[in-house]
Amino acid sequence: MPQYTIGLDYGTNSVRALLVEVGTGAEIATSVYNYPHGEMGILLDPRDPDLARQHPRDYLDGAVAVITDVLAQARAVPGFSPAQVIGLGVDTTGSTPIPVDAEGTPLALKAEFADELGAMAYLWKDHTGHAEAVEITAKAAEMRPQYLAKCGGTYSAEWFWAKILRCLRANPEVFAAAYTWVEHADWLPAVLCGSDAPGAIKRGICAAGHKAMFHPAWGGYPDAEFLAALDPALVRVRASLPNVAYAVGQAAGALSAEWAAKTGLPAGIPVSVGAFDAHLGGVGSGIAPGVLVKIIGTSTCDMMVAPLAADLPDIPGLCGIVPESILPGCYGLEAGQSAVGDIFNWFVNYLQPGGQGHVELTDGAAKLAPGESGLLALDWHNGNRTILVDQRLTGLVLGLTLQTTPAELYRAWVEATAFGARIIMERFEEYGMAVEQIINCGGISAKNPLVMQIYADVMGRPLAISRSAQTCALGAAIAGAVAAGAYADFGAAAAAMTGVQARIFTPIPANQAVYTRLFALYKRVHDSFGVAGADDLRDVMKALLAIRDAARGAGVA
Amino acid sequence: MPQYTIGLDYGTNSVRALLVEVGTGAEIATSVYNYPHGEMGILLDPRDPDLARQHPRDYLDGAVAVITDVLAQARAVPGFSPAQVIGLGVDTTGSTPIPVDAEGTPLALKAEFADELGAMAYLWKDHTGHAEAVEITAKAAEMRPQYLAKCGGTYSAEWFWAKILRCLRANPEVFAAAYTWVEHADWLPAVLCGSDAPGAIKRGICAAGHKAMFHPAWGGYPDAEFLAALDPALVRVRASLPNVAYAVGQAAGALSAEWAAKTGLPAGIPVSVGAFDAHLGGVGSGIAPGVLVKIIGTSTCDMMVAPLAADLPDIPGLCGIVPESILPGCYGLEAGQSAVGDIFNWFVNYLQPGGQGHVELTDGAAKLAPGESGLLALDWHNGNRTILVDQRLTGLVLGLTLQTTPAELYRAWVEATAFGARIIMERFEEYGMAVEQIINCGGISAKNPLVMQIYADVMGRPLAISRSAQTCALGAAIAGAVAAGAYADFGAAAAAMTGVQARIFTPIPANQAVYTRLFALYKRVHDSFGVAGADDLRDVMKALLAIRDAARGAGVA
Repeated sequence: MPQYTIGLDYGTNSVRALLVEVGTGAEIATSVYNYPHGEMGILLDPRDPDLARQHPRDYLDGAVAVITDVLAQARAVPGFSPAQVIGLGVDTTGSTPIPVDAEGTPLALKAEFADELGAMAYLWKDHTGHAEAVEITAKAAEMRPQYLAKCGGTYSAEWFWAKILRCLRANPEVFAAAYTWVEHADWLPAVLCGSDAPGAIKRGICAAGHKAMFHPAWGGYPDAEFLAALDPALVRVRASLPNVAYAVGQAAGALSAEWAAKTGLPAGIPVSVGAFDAHLGGVGSGIAPGVLVKIIGTSTCDMMVAPLAADLPDIPGLCGIVPESILPGCYGLEAGQSAVGDIFNWFVNYLQPGGQGHVELTDGAAKLAPGESGLLALDWHNGNRTILVDQRLTGLVLGLTLQTTPAELYRAWVEATAFGARIIMERFEEYGMAVEQIINCGGISAKNPLVMQIYADVMGRPLAISRSAQTCALGAAIAGAVAAGAYADFGAAAAAMTGVQARIFTPIPANQAVYTRLFALYKRVHDSFGVAGADDLRDVMKALLAIRDAARGAGVA
Repeated sequence: MPQYTIGLDYGTNSVRALLVEVGTGAEIATSVYNYPHGEMGILLDPRDPDLARQHPRDYLDGAVAVITDVLAQARAVPGFSPAQVIGLGVDTTGSTPIPVDAEGTPLALKAEFADELGAMAYLWKDHTGHAEAVEITAKAAEMRPQYLAKCGGTYSAEWFWAKILRCLRANPEVFAAAYTWVEHADWLPAVLCGSDAPGAIKRGICAAGHKAMFHPAWGGYPDAEFLAALDPALVRVRASLPNVAYAVGQAAGALSAEWAAKTGLPAGIPVSVGAFDAHLGGVGSGIAPGVLVKIIGTSTCDMMVAPLAADLPDIPGLCGIVPESILPGCYGLEAGQSAVGDIFNWFVNYLQPGGQGHVELTDGAAKLAPGESGLLALDWHNGNRTILVDQRLTGLVLGLTLQTTPAELYRAWVEATAFGARIIMERFEEYGMAVEQIINCGGISAKNPLVMQIYADVMGRPLAISRSAQTCALGAAIAGAVAAGAYADFGAAAAAMTGVQARIFTPIPANQAVYTRLFALYKRVHDSFGVAGADDLRDVMKALLAIRDAARGAGVA
């Protein structure tokens, strides 16, 4: 009799459940719940474009909605019964910490903080803590350089401690009322298992290691002396945190009777320790040593793993190198771009150029040759996560003329994100992580062949696409299967449950040649605006025009 | 009995006639003819975005249409008769040279060249000769540095010799068939007077001095030795040119019987020597020593005059300093921005952001405080005329975020052009041309108070607006009045026929303070991309964000 697991995948705007057959990875049913609060699920503040919060109520209501819905759909499958569901896995965005009281209740769910943005979940892309991130980086450089070395040399405004310190400064009453702070990825499994009292929560190494400066080498979270130097009030938060963290595939607990009743699942089935969406996307794509997995969606996550036995250097500008953060037995290495699809969406939804949507703009962009537009852009609309680790960077486009069209700009945004992707790949390789295969997943990789071809041309590598369109949720379901003991390890689970599509995107040499020239210009503008050091940019526009003229056949390059 | 003159004003997309009462400058009737050829009157080549040509047929048909129309309208004025029209003045865009045969017939009007873009009028904004401009600059630097000193140190792709040399290279059969080349501003008066045989054309000092390296100091146009060094074939063109040039207000001739019959005007009335639209716009705005006249339209022209007795230095980056090119008895100094309204039009017409037009975007932009958007732009969509004199520069915008709106971008384009305007004003003043008054004219100054307020805030000066909405045409009509002897000189004519509006735009101190900071950033990006020399741009985006946050009240600057 087939067995099933469910992957619960909490994204930026919605939560998805995926019901998977454990033996084959076959996807039986899926359901999406759009968070009702705020703008597409995000609470915004018109006075502060850096602010992005979420309401924890949406996380709870969403879980009930999508689990009951996939079970309802699966009843159409002959022989299916909810009793055959043997485990659950959860992934979420992150770092998305939630302030909770001494009972584990999110402050946002309490009447006195119902309208307080400072008491909500601090969504990954909330950048309100940018000044605090700078402060943490400076203090760590002074007192604990080892902390910085594991997170690329710069602590980010998107991460755990920057957000908590920001809350302390901006919403002291919220900070005072919070007993501790729990990552969404840790909180949700704990809620499902009824183990959400602060002392009972099993925190995942994934969130702790990549975002909260947790490392076994120094006994877990940052020490009290360091935190006190930032602000003495943080010592109390440190005291609320454990000194251990768990890898995905271990059980966070067993599904509580309360949640079994709410969802229709069997009580007592194991729920895996939570992890970030991207990391379980890596799992769902079959990540292994030598494989670069790129999740290309609103932002990207670029992941590699290396055996724990490997002698791995610190890699400057990488968001994190954390033991067992992606796969047990391996270091997990995470890089990424702060915005990719979000840039294309901004162009379509905010600028609304000529009323064109993604399909029309992609069609127009596909008619252009590399270099033909004369445009060059920086993909920093949401800051730069890798390799500059700097949220206080912004998007740029140059090469504009009085004939520049929306399709040209759309292609320039795509190219900019491809150049950013190449910067990340090169950084991995510079530090000895050879990239032997690239597997892409995420909405854009599945939906937009033009983007993938441009990425192949810019990166100069063949690109595979994950077979599943829901690799994060699939990875969560795999974690549920491993937690339930259906497979001995993730390697065996991935071999059975994942795969890539037949179509491989291979670089087109003529395009690659032009992009090599454009990438050199991108790199110079990237470095001038992002890296200290002098650079005369005077020839950048002229070089672009020469490339453009050659591409149009109107002159010589 | 009142007397009248007509100003014929040839713009980029249309020609206008303005019938003016000579005693008061009262504008009696006006008529516009949109050039029917090409896209809004401009012949384009999809393979070469640098190409912009016009059909001379449009110039002729337009003259008949608008003159007959203003006369028809004026018949409604009690007591008016065409016999009371005592003179005509003509202004055109430039440098807009036309290749003509030995009889003075434009090649474009001959059957064998009817479809040949290379035989058309080379519109001012045609940049096909960019490589030739670089070549001319280099050769002049080597052989005739004095030529360069009078045109800002760099010969432009928009100018006479670059276009002719380009034609020799790209369309040798056209070059061979051309006996000589005539600026539109010189050709049209000659046609009206029947004096368009090449030897009979009176060429204006305005076009010759500012665009064709003509100067009395070296006996007129560039010498044959210099031209031969560029290409021996140019010597023949030089031989077709006279050694004298005439100031506006002198008569190019008298209206021919043929054109009197075509238009209904009295035969024999004087037609002034032609000049560029901008220069006669200066005249129509009441230009005088100490006054900066800015014509703000699709592009800008920034003009000053200084008495011939003044000891004037060469000013690097200025398009030209030419005796009597604007007013008899004065040096004419011309600077300008290659695109202003054209950038706003590109945004509305090419990008069509959210389907919003100029009015909605201006309304949205007006709601923003200076610095609030975090954006900074370079106004180089059509190159940079002053002070960089470089067509191979392109537009740029930085500070983009995922929340950037069309109105924010629209304001950023306006601000970019204001910063460009300030660069020009500062260059005048650095070289001793004190700016005591600024009079603005042109479509944008009349129609968009937000733009004018931003210009006042950025430039830190009170800005007056010319009373007439048609200062170029008014200036041409004044030239017609001076040519007809109605006034002894332009000073007397301007005193009677020009004026400014009551509303003066004065700088708002709080805005001025923010713009001082933004201008410093603009200057750095401007210099990094436009001027040789190293500059680390790393803090530019961060400084902008700090200004933005302060403007939004979300942080400290």
